[in-house]
This record gives sequence, structure tokens and C-alpha cells, in this order.
Amino acid sequence: MSIKIEPHISIVGAGPGDPELLTIKGLKAIQSADVILYDALSNDLLLAEAPQHCLKIYVGKRANRHRFAQAEINRLMVQYALALGHVVRLKGGDPFVFGRGHEELSYARENGLKVDLVPGVSSCIAVPELQGIPLTRRGINESFWVLTGTTKDGQLSKDIALAIQTSATIVILMGIHKIEQIAGLFCEQGKAKLPVMVVQNGSYSYQKKVIGTAENIAKKVKEQGIGTPGIIVFGAVVGLATENLKLDQVLSVVTSEGTKK
Amino acid sequence: MSIKIEPHISIVGAGPGDPELLTIKGLKAIQSADVILYDALSNDLLLAEAPQHCLKIYVGKRANRHRFAQAEINRLMVQYALALGHVVRLKGGDPFVFGRGHEELSYARENGLKVDLVPGVSSCIAVPELQGIPLTRRGINESFWVLTGTTKDGQLSKDIALAIQTSATIVILMGIHKIEQIAGLFCEQGKAKLPVMVVQNGSYSYQKKVIGTAENIAKKVKEQGIGTPGIIVFGAVVGLATENLKLDQVLSVVTSEGTKK
Repeated sequence: MSIKIEPHISIVGAGPGDPELLTIKGLKAIQSADVILYDALSNDLLLAEAPQHCLKIYVGKRANRHRFAQAEINRLMVQYALALGHVVRLKGGDPFVFGRGHEELSYARENGLKVDLVPGVSSCIAVPELQGIPLTRRGINESFWVLTGTTKDGQLSKDIALAIQTSATIVILMGIHKIEQIAGLFCEQGKAKLPVMVVQNGSYSYQKKVIGTAENIAKKVKEQGIGTPGIIVFGAVVGLATENLKLDQVLSVVTSEGTKK
Repeated sequence: MSIKIEPHISIVGAGPGDPELLTIKGLKAIQSADVILYDALSNDLLLAEAPQHCLKIYVGKRANRHRFAQAEINRLMVQYALALGHVVRLKGGDPFVFGRGHEELSYARENGLKVDLVPGVSSCIAVPELQGIPLTRRGINESFWVLTGTTKDGQLSKDIALAIQTSATIVILMGIHKIEQIAGLFCEQGKAKLPVMVVQNGSYSYQKKVIGTAENIAKKVKEQGIGTPGIIVFGAVVGLATENLKLDQVLSVVTSEGTKK
């Protein structure tokens, strides 16, 4: 038998969870995949779109339970492409937002493979949005800052202390296990009353959400059993989550640094 | 004639430009639209997906050439929904990233209408990504900051000065007309050699791109005639745009605050 293999890798963002938040380009990549290497954070329903012959391999990692090392994922990606053709590396959210997608891109290109990048809807924007919260709102603030709670050396990013001094909405991914420490930094800087939202499994039907302030959010997260994967949003815009709260009320929250009851 | 109208609004992110970067949910919304109110930044090709009876109305705005006031867009959205049924408000990128989508959501809800939010792929992440640039990369930095260059009162955001002091990648939307002033702030704070990329019409076949440093980017943008709409990315990660530049070389750039030739 002589089939010409055309090695090719697509690094695809699966979006925040709702399978319909995949892009059309992402769907087409899945529908033409020979192999899919997928994450814990990408929705399993998407795998059903793959051709029948497609190999589907879980290479997910979860906090504190690393299953595959990154080097192993890189190696599998390239070897499968050489052996079977089109490999889709399917990653939750957007592959370039703390997803190590760039490391995969570099490795594949170093090995001479053609790589397509397919951006995805990032949870850092979409999860608050699906709660009715914009990361910025005219008259409230003009920027948002996205950080990871889990840095390479396990420490909190030094950038957080500076971020707190601004009017930026602060979004923290992979930080739920450090919520007490992070919220404490806000309290130390006089922002104890700043609204905070934590969402676990955002955009899924079984998502869990809690809204509080910097001074009580850690307690609420614990009480309500909110765990990973999740995102944390600190900012006056969180006050907009209550549909009936009018803009002037939110602005009064910002000014007085109080928060809604 | 008696047709029951079911007023309904979908606020849909069209993604950065490439029509295949629309989500499946966004496509379904367009395919069931009775009216589409669309922006300059949403790709016209998407309109072809609408049903034949669908009204397609341009309500775009461009810097310095406001065509429709926001209040007028809000009013049209609600009136068309009441008169004709399903209105899709189609916006470039993600509707909640500096898109005033939240103002539209508030207005529609205040008027008692059902609103679906459909997040989109945001240019702030996807445009650098399509150039091979991740906003963060392990070992280089742990955060990114997205700002608008055009605030409500026309001034530069005060947050920029603080952002410059961090290791965050700084993404500025709607700032090309202020590139000289913004880059000047980086130079004043000793970051004259920091890599910068400016992309106009990112993800379109006719996109234009220029890479430089804080000290020369304004001149390059002018020379190459880069205009709106565009995004600006300041950060060591811009060094990763050169495929052949290995991570250790980029790190040496960060350390020495030099830049690649």
C-alpha cells in the first residue's frame, strides 16, 4: 500500500467550553483530522465531529496532576503528524493564552512541519461576558489585565501588586487555589470592598459562580466549593453582573469603594 | 396578515476579520436573523450567510467619522426587534472588548427584550497570535494588558504609565493615531529598545504589519502608511515573531533590553 502522508499540524482553540463557541475554522480542522490530541479543557462533544478513522488521544493536564509533560505532547504531535497526516492539537480557550501553544508551534516548526494556528474564544473575556460583565465599560475603566495565578516557579506574579494600583479590571486564570493570597493583596492596598467574581467551568451548563468582595471572596469560594478550572475577575465592572443595577449605581460603588449588598 | 413577532436580540462577535473565525453559534445567529446591524469591523462576507429576507443595515463608526451615534444604534436595535423579530447586532472582534456591547445589552434589557450574548475571537489576542506571537510565554512574562488608546475624553489612559513598569505585554487597540505619544512614554521610562509590532487589518489577506522598537516604531508606521483599524503590541514576546529566533535569543533581548536587528 502506498498512501502519501502529508504531515500537518493545526493548533486549535476550542473556546471556553460551550461547543458552539468553537470557530468555523476550528470545526473544519477537526473534521479533517487524522489524530486529535486534546486537553481536559476542550469539550469532549467536539471530538464527535472528527472522522471515524481519527485517533483521539487525551493529553490533558490538571493542576497538581500532570499527566503528560509538555515535551511528551510536543513529541507525540510531531510523530503522529509524520506517521498519520493531519494532527489537530485541540486546546481549551485560546491556544496562546497561557496555553503553551507557542511552545508547541516552535517545536513543530523546528521539526520542519507546517502549522496552522486557529485562535479560539478566550475564557478570560468570554466567561465574564456570559455573566453580562464587560471587562471594560466607558466611564468605569479603560483597560483589563490578564494574569496567571500559577507562574513557572509557583510564586504569584509580581505584576499583581502594580495591577492593583490601576483602574484595570484584573482577570486571573489558574489562580483559584491562591484566591486567599491574591484577595489579601487587594485588601492590603485598600481595595477590600472591590467586587470580585469567581466562575468555575464557565459557559458549561454546570458552571458555578460566586460574587463577593476582596475581603470575603476566599471564604465564599470555600463555602460554595468552587474549584478548578476557573477564573477570577476583580473590578468595579463586576457590579454590572446584576442586571438591574444601573450604571450610575455602579459608578457610585467605584467612587465610594463600597459594593452592592 | 397576522404573524407573531418574537422580539429577540443576539449580540454577536464576528472575530478579527477572517470569516472562518466566526463561532458556530455566531453563524447560527446570522442564519436566523431578520435584521443585521453591522459594524465596519465585521467582515461583509458574513452577511452572505443571512436569509434572503434579512435586512442588512450598516451602523459602522470609524475614528473621526462617526456615522451613527450609540443611542441611535441602541434605538434601531430595539425597534427592529419589536417590528421584525430577530435582530443580530454583529460587531468586529468580541462585542465586550471596547465594543460598547454592554451598553447595547443594558439598553435592550431595559426595554424588556431577550438578549443572547455570543462572544467572539478578540483581535487583541488573535491578531498577534496569527503572527506567531503569544501574549505571554513561560520564562518571558506572565501577563498581558489590553488598553484602548482612545478614551472617552480623548486623553491617553493613565494606566499606561503603570503598565510600562511591569513585564506585561501591552496591547493597545484604537491607538494608532497616538503611536508617537504612546511609544514616547516607553522611551521616557528606559524602554526605547522594547520590541513593538503594529498590525493593520489583522487576519485579512490585505493586512499590513510593521515591527520595530519603541524608539523607531512611530517613524516606521508613518513611512509604511499603516493606519486604522489596527492594534499595537509592546513586549519582549514580539521578538518571537521571527520564527528562527530561539527562545534563549529572545531572553537575551529581554535581559539586555536590546532588540533583534
